[in-house]
This record gives sequence, structure tokens and C-alpha cells, in this order.
Amino acid sequence: MRDIRTVNENLADRDKKHLWHPLTQHKISPDMLPIKSAKGSILIDEEGKEYIDAISSWYTAVYGHCNSYITNRVAKQMQVLDQVVFSGFTHKPAIELSEALIKILPEGQQKLFFNDNGSTATEIGIKMALQYHHNLGNDRKVMLAFEEGFHGDTFGAMSVSGLSVYNGAFEDHFIRVERLPVPNGKNNEQVIAILKDLISKHSIAGFIYEPLVQGAAAMKFHDAQGLNEILKVCRQNDIILVADEVMTGFGKTGKYFASDHIEEKPDVICMSKALTAGLLPMGLTSCSQKIYDAFYSDDIAKGLFHGHTYTANPLACSAALAAVELLVSDEIQEKIQQICNANKKFVKMLRSNPKVGNARSKGVIMAFELDVKMERYGNLRNEIFKFFMDKGVFLRPLGNTIYIVPPYTISEEELQKVYAVIEDSLTVF
Amino acid sequence: MRDIRTVNENLADRDKKHLWHPLTQHKISPDMLPIKSAKGSILIDEEGKEYIDAISSWYTAVYGHCNSYITNRVAKQMQVLDQVVFSGFTHKPAIELSEALIKILPEGQQKLFFNDNGSTATEIGIKMALQYHHNLGNDRKVMLAFEEGFHGDTFGAMSVSGLSVYNGAFEDHFIRVERLPVPNGKNNEQVIAILKDLISKHSIAGFIYEPLVQGAAAMKFHDAQGLNEILKVCRQNDIILVADEVMTGFGKTGKYFASDHIEEKPDVICMSKALTAGLLPMGLTSCSQKIYDAFYSDDIAKGLFHGHTYTANPLACSAALAAVELLVSDEIQEKIQQICNANKKFVKMLRSNPKVGNARSKGVIMAFELDVKMERYGNLRNEIFKFFMDKGVFLRPLGNTIYIVPPYTISEEELQKVYAVIEDSLTVF
Repeated sequence: MRDIRTVNENLADRDKKHLWHPLTQHKISPDMLPIKSAKGSILIDEEGKEYIDAISSWYTAVYGHCNSYITNRVAKQMQVLDQVVFSGFTHKPAIELSEALIKILPEGQQKLFFNDNGSTATEIGIKMALQYHHNLGNDRKVMLAFEEGFHGDTFGAMSVSGLSVYNGAFEDHFIRVERLPVPNGKNNEQVIAILKDLISKHSIAGFIYEPLVQGAAAMKFHDAQGLNEILKVCRQNDIILVADEVMTGFGKTGKYFASDHIEEKPDVICMSKALTAGLLPMGLTSCSQKIYDAFYSDDIAKGLFHGHTYTANPLACSAALAAVELLVSDEIQEKIQQICNANKKFVKMLRSNPKVGNARSKGVIMAFELDVKMERYGNLRNEIFKFFMDKGVFLRPLGNTIYIVPPYTISEEELQKVYAVIEDSLTVF
Repeated sequence: MRDIRTVNENLADRDKKHLWHPLTQHKISPDMLPIKSAKGSILIDEEGKEYIDAISSWYTAVYGHCNSYITNRVAKQMQVLDQVVFSGFTHKPAIELSEALIKILPEGQQKLFFNDNGSTATEIGIKMALQYHHNLGNDRKVMLAFEEGFHGDTFGAMSVSGLSVYNGAFEDHFIRVERLPVPNGKNNEQVIAILKDLISKHSIAGFIYEPLVQGAAAMKFHDAQGLNEILKVCRQNDIILVADEVMTGFGKTGKYFASDHIEEKPDVICMSKALTAGLLPMGLTSCSQKIYDAFYSDDIAKGLFHGHTYTANPLACSAALAAVELLVSDEIQEKIQQICNANKKFVKMLRSNPKVGNARSKGVIMAFELDVKMERYGNLRNEIFKFFMDKGVFLRPLGNTIYIVPPYTISEEELQKVYAVIEDSLTVF
């Protein structure tokens, strides 16, 4: 189907003709870099240059790219059952995945509702919270969310995202949301006072939060004890707790889920990204029996009439099941601990550098602020990105925040190279 | 990871423990039927019973299940590049897919924005329409949509769906939408009058419509000439035309896209379902140069800051490219025409049956109403479903509408069996 002219052009030029990339103002963005292949922690471009994928391709490919333990399972599944309507039908890959997940999910999670990505996972979390109260006859129509939270780009998900930048065209259409400051250990009492005030003034149905780490806000950490107090007050007031673990889930914080660090457990958990190990898209929203029971009725209208066509796609389920098996293995758990320890050591070293602000780590996530003024999507940010890429490390600074979320399978040598290149950058910027 | 007890239970019982199915009120729904495998037009359950998949698993697996032409390509891609961030990076599967799609999309489509399912495809379509006007400084914040349209289940998509049943918990949160009756050939002038009145009263940014066939409304057809007149009036008033071809796209109506039947072409097209041939999830929103240009600016805030993690997943792109190659092949085009002709003949026969109302076909889509009173999700509907399944045909009546959207690769014998079972049903219900 290709003509000769097209074939002779390079990929970066061909890309420009018909592709509109996400989160990109094309007029002021550099060319897109064509990636040819990936294996383990390494991305390889068209010229053969290698880059360590120090953010696991947006926190997905945590068991390494093209991991044969996972791809073999998907290849087998493709020969057996590709897809079937998940309304009225079921299949083994979904059932086995549900059994495996329930064993590792935080206490109290009982039912799984499949979907396709992080945005739909949070939309369903929001819908569960709103309809839970609607079904019980409670007039509660307001969602509560953190300042600077990020939960996705569809209308419901955008609405609860305090961090939705450049969304001026859509803000008039957002659902009703009240915002809470993030607890930092010093302001905890004040945050609780604000929370109680909001509860007294608004009929709050649910609270959606990224537990412990706000990813898109530039890997901002908050106080676990402060979060726990917020969750307790919410629970006392029958506000549904919706934990958005799209970024934090599946080992990133050192435990299976970030909610495992916190005493008060969520009613609803939103998952995606590492769920399918960077192979193909899937989202999942789990919930407690209490939520499910509020929808379980002789009245059909009390059901959750949400459904995406590829819900519980068997290929995605088989990838996710293989991924859970890897996650719980001794080998991967040891690797996660090794990265945790290496991160802690590196953070300690960084703290003595005057150019570094707020060096921190939680599990495999390590982040700090470079002490320079810059815009989130500005030129200096692009220069730092280019500096890392030139040195063979793919890092994606968010404004002046430099962070890593490496694959759990990264080698000691590769991890040390990532640290070394970051140290280099501190001598340049 | 499994214990013995779990393994000894049957799949339908295991399914009940942790799975919450889409569009299902579990308390009054029959058990989910476990499907073990699928090949070509056939689904096979755990007992080995075979069912002809007469709706291509929700209009996705149109080249047959587990089609080796497609699965081989995905298996290869899995060995090379599974996933990479699509912001700042690109890859051959996305570029080649974009080139192949632009060749078959209706005239005027120029840029492709990837996403993960039909709901996100329409959310992006809505966002393109709203932000197009926002970027140009026009105060237009209302969407226009058909009565009984269906565009998905996320908040934006739900808002424009006239058919969103059982959404009482969410309606207060919907974006602003005005509704237009569907043109039926007799009411065309009246519809245009209503349209002009709406335009005079509201600042309408975009019109979202399922061209020619409203799928979820139970395969309702509308008048092509009437739609064309609506689109003309909208275009004269700079209302962005967003064609939701999630169901109709990729050959279902006998042409590549339903918009190919209509003179006035859309500005934006939403795609999913058959895009990836029933193998794995992906969505896509294409647009004209005019739309893209309104976002292309030195002002970063004029960009479309929407992005899903698995955007342009290389596996999904390689499946979609293989699917386009099949779609344009002589073999598949001939098969589509054969099904079109067989449907026409069957419809003619059905029209003489007094139990049949409004028998109709468009491409591979064939539908009619059974002349009985029933609810959309009621018991009689479940009985008809069971009747078909007992006879080895998977059909999914929508209320009293019985319809087929068979795989293009269905054999003549299989198609005749589907028709025969439908004829049988007319003697029973």
C-alpha cells in the first residue's frame, strides 16, 4: 500500500504528516524521535542508539520491555480466544486474573469492573461513588479531590484533576468538585479543619486521591499519617474513598499498592499502567462488597450501566495475569527492594548538593527539584531532556522536577548509569 | 497461585465471586456463559458447544476471530517494540497505520489522534469541537446531538448520548447538549426548522452524530439526504461536524465509512471497535487540517492537552494496520458485497411476515422489530436470546429489535444458518 516516495522519507518526517501527538503543541515541539525496538530496560532508536528507559515508558513496562514470560502468554492466548462480549459471557483469563488480583489487593476489595485505561478507571470510580449514594437515596452530588491531583483526561476525570492545565475550553463543563490541600505533616490539623468545613457545607459523595504520591504533579509526596486522618474523617461521614492507584499500583511504592502503607483502606481502587506491564491497554476499577451491594438489586436501574466494547479483553487479561505472577515472585520482590535501597542511598547523596531541592524516594520512585526557574513545558525543560537523551538515558522531567521510576528488572549497572547521568546534569544546569 | 478448591469449581461460579460485568444488573441476570475459544465466525463454550458470532463480538471481529493474518503480525510486533511514550517519540506501526488510514478515510481527514476506546474517541471529538471555538475566541459551549444517539459511557460521552438509560445518578453533571430529532425522510424539513431554531438560540460548537445507523438505539437507520441537509446547515454556521463511526466504520455499511454515503464530509471522525479487528482495544479520532490548524500555535495553551498512557500502542497499531490491509483486499470487499446482497434478499422475505416490523439492511447490518411488547432488558428479551443460543447462534436483541452484524468472513452456510434460526424464532415468539 506504500508508494516509493513515502518509503524514502525518514520516519520523523513521515510522522509529521498525519500524526497529532498527545500533550504536544506541535508548533513549538522538537521532532518526535522514532523508536525501533525495546528490550528489557533499553529503548533503541532508528540509528541504533540505546536509551535506558528510566521511567518504564510512563510507569508501565516495569518487568522490562518485551518480557518473554508475558509475551509468550499473550501469544498463546491470541491463538485461543481474542475477544468476546463481556456482558452475558465470561472467560478463564478474566476469572483467573480476578482471583490473582483479589489476593494482592488491599484488604476489603471484592469485585472488579474492567475498562480500558486510567481515565476510564477513575470515571468508573467517580460513578460508583455518585451512584452509591443515588441508589441509597442520599442527595450527594459533589466529589472531593486534592489540589494538584491528576486523574485523567476525559470529562469526569478532568473535573476531579486539580492539575488540569490548559483546560480552559472545558472548565464550564466540569462536574462539581471541592478541593482539599495535600497534608504535608505540618498542616495536617489545618487540612482536617478544612475537610470538616467542606463536609458541613457540601453534600460530598466521594473523595478521589492518589495515595502517597501525586504523579503528574511531579512526583509530589504527601504525609501518610495526614492522609490516613483524612480518610478516617471521610469514612465517618460515609464519603466513598476512591484510591487512584493508576500510577502507584503494582509495586511502585515498594508495596503492592500505595494503600498498603496506609491504615484506612479505600472502598474503590482505580488501576491501569503496570497492570498490563506495558504490553497493551487495560484499566480496572475494584471495589468493596459494600459498594457492590448498593448496586445489587431487583431494580435494574440500580445497576452500573457502563460498558466498553473491549471490556476484559482476553489478551490484556492474560498479560495482566502473567504480570501479577511476576510481581509476587521472590525475584521481582528482591529487585524492588534493591532499587528502594539504591534510591535511598542516592537521595542521601543528592541532599548534600546545593542545586538539589527536596530529594525524596518512595519505593522505586526517586525525585528531586532542580533549583532553577523554568516552565512545565518550557525550553530549559526540553534542554535537560535532550541532555539526558544524548547521554543515553530516557528521563522525562516535569518542569524542574527530575524523577525516575525504573523497570524492576533494571540491572545494577544500568541503574548506576542513570544516577551518574543525573549527577552529571547537576554540573551543567 | 490457585488453591484446589477454586480449581474444582466451574467457571460460571468462579466468575460470580469477583467479577462485576458491564451493563448487567447481577441480581436479575442469568449466569455468565464461559467461552473457551473462538475461531473464524465461531465461539466455543466450555462444553464444546459452538455458536455463530452473528454480531462479530460487538462489531469488532469482522475478519473472524483469531485471524492468523492479524495475530501473526501482532506476535511479531510483541518481539520488537511493545510500548513507548507517544509524546516526544514515535514508531513505525503508528506511522504506517496513519498512512494506510488516510488513504481510506473520507475526503478531508488529515490528522490522527490516538486513544483507547470508543468513549475516549468521542470525548476527544467533543474536546476538539469545543476547543476549536475556544482557540478562535468564539464563545460556543453547547454540543448538538441526535435524540437516541449513543456515544459512550464516560461523562462527556454520556452527556451527548440521548440514549443514556439508567444514568439518573449522573445527569446533573452532564455537559450542555441540545438535541435534534433524527431525519426519517418525512420530517426532514421540520428537523431543519428545529435545527435553525436551536442555532439561533444557542451557541453551538459542534454536532456529534452516528452517520446513517444509530447502533445502540437498536440499529435505527435514518435518512441520508436528511442527514446531509443537517450537515450542510451546520457547516454554514461553523458548527464542527463530529462523525461517530465507532460502530459504522470499516465496512459495516458496505463502504469503508458510513460518511462515504453522504455528500457533506465530517470535520472529525471517531473510530474504535473493528479498527483493531477484535484483537485488543484502541480508539482513534481523526480530523481535518482546519481543526488541527486551530490548535497549532506558538501559544502552548492552544494545544490539545489530552493523553492516555498507551496512546498508539504498537501492538494495537500493528493489528489495525493488518486489519486495514484485509479491509481493502478484493477478497474482503467481495465478501462484504455478498453479505449485503444476502441481507437484502432476506429482508425482502421478512417483509412478508406479519410478525416482522421495519425489516431493513445497510451493508452487513440487518435488523427488524419483532412485533411484541417487551422491555429493553426484560425477560422476553432474555428468552429470545436463549432461543438463539440454544440453536447455536449468538445474537443480542436490543429490546424487540433483532439484528445481525456478521463477520465479513462468515461462510455462506453459516450465514444461511443465522437466517434460518431467525426464521424459526418467528414461529415461536
